[in-house]
This record gives sequence, structure tokens and C-alpha cells, in this order.
Amino acid sequence: MADTDWPGCGKSLKGVILDMCGVLYDSGEGGGVAITGSIEAVKKLKASDLQLRFCTNETQLNREAFVDKLKRLGFDISVSEVFSPAPAAVAVLKERGFRPHLLVYDGLLPEFDSVDKTNPNCVVIGDAAEKFTYQNLNEAFRVLIGLEKPVLFSLGGGRYYKEGDGLALDVGAYMKALEYACDLKAEVVGKPSPTFFQSVLNDMGLQPHEALMIGDDLVNDVGGAQNCGMKGLQVRTGKYRPSDERHSTVTADGTVDDLAQAVDMILKQRH
Amino acid sequence: MADTDWPGCGKSLKGVILDMCGVLYDSGEGGGVAITGSIEAVKKLKASDLQLRFCTNETQLNREAFVDKLKRLGFDISVSEVFSPAPAAVAVLKERGFRPHLLVYDGLLPEFDSVDKTNPNCVVIGDAAEKFTYQNLNEAFRVLIGLEKPVLFSLGGGRYYKEGDGLALDVGAYMKALEYACDLKAEVVGKPSPTFFQSVLNDMGLQPHEALMIGDDLVNDVGGAQNCGMKGLQVRTGKYRPSDERHSTVTADGTVDDLAQAVDMILKQRH
Repeated sequence: MADTDWPGCGKSLKGVILDMCGVLYDSGEGGGVAITGSIEAVKKLKASDLQLRFCTNETQLNREAFVDKLKRLGFDISVSEVFSPAPAAVAVLKERGFRPHLLVYDGLLPEFDSVDKTNPNCVVIGDAAEKFTYQNLNEAFRVLIGLEKPVLFSLGGGRYYKEGDGLALDVGAYMKALEYACDLKAEVVGKPSPTFFQSVLNDMGLQPHEALMIGDDLVNDVGGAQNCGMKGLQVRTGKYRPSDERHSTVTADGTVDDLAQAVDMILKQRH
Repeated sequence: MADTDWPGCGKSLKGVILDMCGVLYDSGEGGGVAITGSIEAVKKLKASDLQLRFCTNETQLNREAFVDKLKRLGFDISVSEVFSPAPAAVAVLKERGFRPHLLVYDGLLPEFDSVDKTNPNCVVIGDAAEKFTYQNLNEAFRVLIGLEKPVLFSLGGGRYYKEGDGLALDVGAYMKALEYACDLKAEVVGKPSPTFFQSVLNDMGLQPHEALMIGDDLVNDVGGAQNCGMKGLQVRTGKYRPSDERHSTVTADGTVDDLAQAVDMILKQRH
């Protein structure tokens, strides 16, 4: 889809939800680097009459540390504007009386401080990178297979992501390994779960058709938002691949070069 | 099914195929331990007019080392009688011009000595246990995702196995992880692949209805053999679970306490 064909929803639009990694910044050594124009684009959105939230499947750091990292890159963001899987999972665990065995990044552990973790009756996995050892994965497997009714929560379900010099397996791959070994279906907390997108809409007090999601992940960002009745815009940064524009099941409502271009188009349509 | 109900195929039977781990021996520290009566049962089969082959998804050792291990436990077995996934995979790789990136136990590597491994155009994974590190799995993933048409061979597709004090994830779990990350379907070499069972039948020169498979794995041994037209008998040793006897899709042609009982019943029916 050519940029100029992008069907504006500018006039009726009341809120914008931004994916973070691949839209605001590219990850990498030392916290990553801001994508050109994205800091200014966030400023423009904040100065407009649109509501703004950030929606990420980031699970390497707790929200405080993650927001600090983005502030250091130059972004004007506060913790209350950021929606990530771990707090959503904590709410589900408490609501349903689950005590998790955790296989997540050490940096994420503080998010689970308030949760009872004794005598686990479920497993929660996030992207754990180097912590996805044979031993740790077996340990999580043994907890699950030892439960009468094994329950697995996965913080996101991504296939892979770009990390420094190459691609790396994301949590979804390990979720599938445990699903197969234990003959179960994991509950994904985070994008593209409709419950997750809905919690962001609830926070803004908006209906789906009043909100636009902007992300670099065609399936999880764009497709997930569309499944909830929102419009979904893909940026050609981050994990974007040209083949996304001829994907078999998901078609973005628009494809733009980067966040800066997206924001300029949105704001232009409103005036 | 009660043991006494076992429908004999004794008179028409011309060959028996035995699974190894969980039927002949239990694995564990120092090479494992023979299951009571199994050494004598193999002797009885060899003294009969029945053909005998061994069919294993063992991929921790090459066949020579594996057979040596069983000889030390007291079994009368030779390499030519043993069918395992690695040699079957080597045949497939050579036939189809594949140069593998290998993620397998070090002990299995000699099986692939004759295969060109430069500039890989496919990935072969076996049960690799401690070698299933985050780094090694990412490396295999990167080879696959970098190929125009990624091809993954899995030496068996087991979910998990018993190892010493507990259960451990088997190769199938890691196969599923790579399948999901790369959006592909792996080719399983070994049980329950029909090609694999057929190669054993070919070696004996028998038709499926003339052969009986005996194993502890209901799906891979019994179900796999039945899918090829053989009878399949399950033993209540190894990874057998009582719930196997009310499985939703696979029903064994008979269930017996152990190999010793199976062999006594087979030989009794022939006289």
C-alpha cells in the first residue's frame, strides 16, 4: 500500500497506541538508539488533543527501569502510560489464585514481588534469553508435568526479535516447546491478546474505532489491534520486512516509513 | 485390556521388532540397568525361528557405542540388528543433497562423519540435552531463518523421557520451538515415521502383518507400528503410564507387564 493511499481516520481519532521497540528505538548494546524523528513525533502527539499510550511486550526489565531507559534516550514517557505483560500477568495471577514458578529475566523479577511464589501451581515464562538453559527449561517443564492441571502463562508469544548483530529466539518458541511437551495450550499475556489491548482502551476510556495502533510487528501489533476493532498502522522500521506488505492473513490499514511520517499524516488530517 | 485377552498373532508371526530403552533396560547413571527378564527374553527370541530387529530413537551415542553399552548390560545384540534415526538421516541427507548444521549429542557425531557439512542448507537436531543451550538453539535458528527454503530434520519427535531422578524434555520440544520460530514443519526421522518402520520391515523381507512391534511408548512405538499395518504390543515398563490404557487415539493390540511376559506368550502361541 502506497503511503498516499493511507485511509485517514484522523478526524474521528481520539487516541493513539504506540509499540515501543522498533517504533521508538532499536535495541542493542547500551540500551539501544532512538529511531530518527521518533522523539519529536512523541512530543507532537503529546502536544495534540489525542490520548497517547505505549504498549509493549518488553519483558527484560520492570517498567520503572524500562521507562528510565527511554527517558535517557530522550523520550517524554511516564510509567503510568506504559502497558506491558508483567503487570497484566500479576493481575491475572492474583485474580485466579495462581502461585507462579517464574522463568523470566532477572530484571523483570521486581514486577512479581507482591505475588506468592511458594508451592507453585502454574508456570510463567517471559523472554529469558541466556536464562533459557536446558536446566531452567527442564525445571519449568517438571513443575508443569507434576501438576494435575498444568497451566502455562507466556508473556507475549513472539517468534523472534532482532538483537544487536542478528535474530534471537523469542519467548513464543519456548512456549511452543513446553506446550508440546505437556500437551497443553499456553495463555498468552500481552500482545496480541485481545484482553491486553482492551485494558489499554479501558484506560483511555475509548471505543476501539476511536483508537489507532502503530507498530513494527504486523501480526502482533497490527493484526492484534485489528482483531479488537482498532485500525493498525505498520512502520517500516524495527522488525518490518518487505514481505509483510503481501502477508497471507494480515493487511495493515496503512504502511509508513517511520513514526515521524505516521504522526505528521495523522495530525495533518485533523486540521 | 487384560493380558489374557491378548489376540495372538503367534502362528502367522515371522518377525519381532523391539524398542530398546524402557523395554530392554532403564537408562540412568553408568549406562542404566537391564529390566528383569529382558536379557533372557532376547535369548529366547534369538533361539526361535522368528526374525528379530531392534528399533530405537536413541540419539545420544552412535550405534557402535550404543550396542557396546547393551552388550555390557548382558544383551546379545549386534550393530546390524539395530535401527536408529542417525543412519536413516544420513541416507536422506545424501540422497537429497543436504549439508546439515548439526545440533546433536557429541557422541552421535561420528554417525555423520561421511556427510558434507560445509555451507549448511538444512538443520538436523537430535536429543542434545545439555547442548540445548540458548546459544546453540539460536545458532540453529539463524541457519534456518537465513535459508531461502528452510529445512529441519528431527531425529525422533519425543516429548520427554525419564532420566535418572526425573523427566527431561526430548528433542520434539525443541523441534516445535524451531518450527514455530521459522514457520515450518520439521521432517521427523525415526519412530513414528512410517518410512523408518518400513526400512526395518524391508531389512527382514517381511510384510507388515507378519511383524509385531513391542515398545513402552504408546504413540511412537505402538501407534507408529499400527499405522504401518503391524501389530503393536505395549509393555508396562519404561515410560508406560496407566493412562495409556485409555488413550484417546491409540489402542495397543495388547498390554503386558514386561518383555519377558510378552515373549513367553508369543512363543507359547506358536507351539
